Amino acid sequence: MSDIMNRQLRLKARPEARVGAEHFSLVETPLPELREGEVLIRVLYLSMDPTNRVWMSDIPQYLPPVAIGETMRALGIGRVSASRSEKFAVGDLVQGLVGWQDYAHVAADEVPKLLKLPAEPGLPLPTLLGACGMSGLTAYYGLTEIAPVQPGETLVVSAAAGSVGSIAGQIGKIHGARVVGIAGGEEKCRYLTETLGFDAAVDYKAPDWKTALKAATPDGVHVNFENVGGEVMRAVLSRMVIGGRVALCGVISSYNSNGGRAGDDFGVLISKRLTMRGFLILDYRKNREAMQQLAGWLRDGRLKAEETVAEGLEHAPEVLNRLFDGSHRGKLVLRVAEDA
Amino acid sequence: MSDIMNRQLRLKARPEARVGAEHFSLVETPLPELREGEVLIRVLYLSMDPTNRVWMSDIPQYLPPVAIGETMRALGIGRVSASRSEKFAVGDLVQGLVGWQDYAHVAADEVPKLLKLPAEPGLPLPTLLGACGMSGLTAYYGLTEIAPVQPGETLVVSAAAGSVGSIAGQIGKIHGARVVGIAGGEEKCRYLTETLGFDAAVDYKAPDWKTALKAATPDGVHVNFENVGGEVMRAVLSRMVIGGRVALCGVISSYNSNGGRAGDDFGVLISKRLTMRGFLILDYRKNREAMQQLAGWLRDGRLKAEETVAEGLEHAPEVLNRLFDGSHRGKLVLRVAEDA
Repeated sequence: MSDIMNRQLRLKARPEARVGAEHFSLVETPLPELREGEVLIRVLYLSMDPTNRVWMSDIPQYLPPVAIGETMRALGIGRVSASRSEKFAVGDLVQGLVGWQDYAHVAADEVPKLLKLPAEPGLPLPTLLGACGMSGLTAYYGLTEIAPVQPGETLVVSAAAGSVGSIAGQIGKIHGARVVGIAGGEEKCRYLTETLGFDAAVDYKAPDWKTALKAATPDGVHVNFENVGGEVMRAVLSRMVIGGRVALCGVISSYNSNGGRAGDDFGVLISKRLTMRGFLILDYRKNREAMQQLAGWLRDGRLKAEETVAEGLEHAPEVLNRLFDGSHRGKLVLRVAEDA
Repeated sequence: MSDIMNRQLRLKARPEARVGAEHFSLVETPLPELREGEVLIRVLYLSMDPTNRVWMSDIPQYLPPVAIGETMRALGIGRVSASRSEKFAVGDLVQGLVGWQDYAHVAADEVPKLLKLPAEPGLPLPTLLGACGMSGLTAYYGLTEIAPVQPGETLVVSAAAGSVGSIAGQIGKIHGARVVGIAGGEEKCRYLTETLGFDAAVDYKAPDWKTALKAATPDGVHVNFENVGGEVMRAVLSRMVIGGRVALCGVISSYNSNGGRAGDDFGVLISKRLTMRGFLILDYRKNREAMQQLAGWLRDGRLKAEETVAEGLEHAPEVLNRLFDGSHRGKLVLRVAEDA
């Protein structure tokens, strides 16, 4: 045993709706000694993602649900603080599924899954989790591989002020599309059009938002980058042109209810001959070319990134809820420790 | 006015659930005289299709809903009994949206939409509405353009004993796939495996059908030709391989409730990275090459067609319900008149 203490948030009970502190135990234990091939990571930032909520539910999904008693799974960035692996040296900056804890003790067979970041990345660490990380890559692949958008087409992005949506809309503009974002509240909508350069924004909290969506898409919708599902997606699908394409990235509106919602209807895919393609960034996550493209756009100002940084590992459950309340903009990250 | 009387079934009220005689008025009127460019068709067979039910509902769809007071829209086959169009002569066999009536009086601007069939087609007329008509074409395009199935892959077809499903499964076999059909009842399931050559059949009315589906798809499902939606589709999607493809042809399970059902969930498209493509045969309906391919397969016995023929225009509403009760096999048609 080491004399360093590690705090972990372990899943105690599966939430039925919103996540709360009551669903986790905060456990403090000394770190075990490293064995051959293992790595210890000091967690610096945790990425707060809608998919975290899915992992807490015992429903069929792309990874096994987090087990009761297990440390909550989460993507994050940290620095190697001890290493018995040839692959990593103390001080290396890494990204991986570090979990909701102060230190990630990475077993030898898990070490290959860690992504080494440049020691001096030239971008703030939260950006490496956001616009130049998984969020940015998700937006990038959604609009290149999954549902490529062509110049002159209309792209509608939901959750458009969020980490993925805000980048997706800007990439749509880079590709020459007319871009309409859907977000909650006037302030976010102004942010989309005035700061990020979207052509139009629709506030889904306004009573007449469906009329506004119609007015903002006079030629219909060619591509939908969908993050929300439910009522928002239904409204967008109703505006799609025949043969339109949907990059289905998320259905966050259903995550707190552990599945689909009444009123979801696949029939519109038939009547409009739509192609809907679900995707996970998991399949593309190590593509450095795309990351360099995103980094280039960020450096030359074509892409604007914003992060909302919350503090304190112990607040992770309540911070995660901000994704569902919409009380953040851009990438939501949790700072666990200062980078030394 | 002509002295020929025409019976028409006109939509009187929109059904909320099952269709009944009470939703239609049977109106008898003399046929008007033909004007320049117009055609009169003696209706012989009506195609009874799930989409007919959708047309009765005032929900967003690919054609305008049938208006209250309007003759029910339906595809059918008939013979030209009078013509003032250069395009058609008396005695020509035609297919088109003839409607639920004895005679279709086709306006000049609608005449181009009629499809002329060979005078001696060499196949029974119901087959021209079924395996060698819209149903066969739907199956054909679903498995070639929409979700091509490769040799060795597993294809699951729902409503597999129906007009489209029975052909889709057989085309899957022709393409070298392992084909599993889902149908209601032991007799239909035997028909699929013993007569049509499916590799396996799953009776969704049996209590353990989801276990049976799992057992019948040991390597997962690569392509789903989906006709049903709802619970059946959910079970199939849960068996799909990562990156599987869905040809979404119909969601008949929701047509009697005018839309989607509780529990429908788009999330599985993400977790399994599925591509779901909705399609309508409307977009492919005049492709004679595909029809010739189907006719060739029918002649050489690689494709088996079955039709269920009901009698009497006045029974159309109750006959349509057989599509939803599953009390038919293959193509369901209504004979309105004997071919002279």
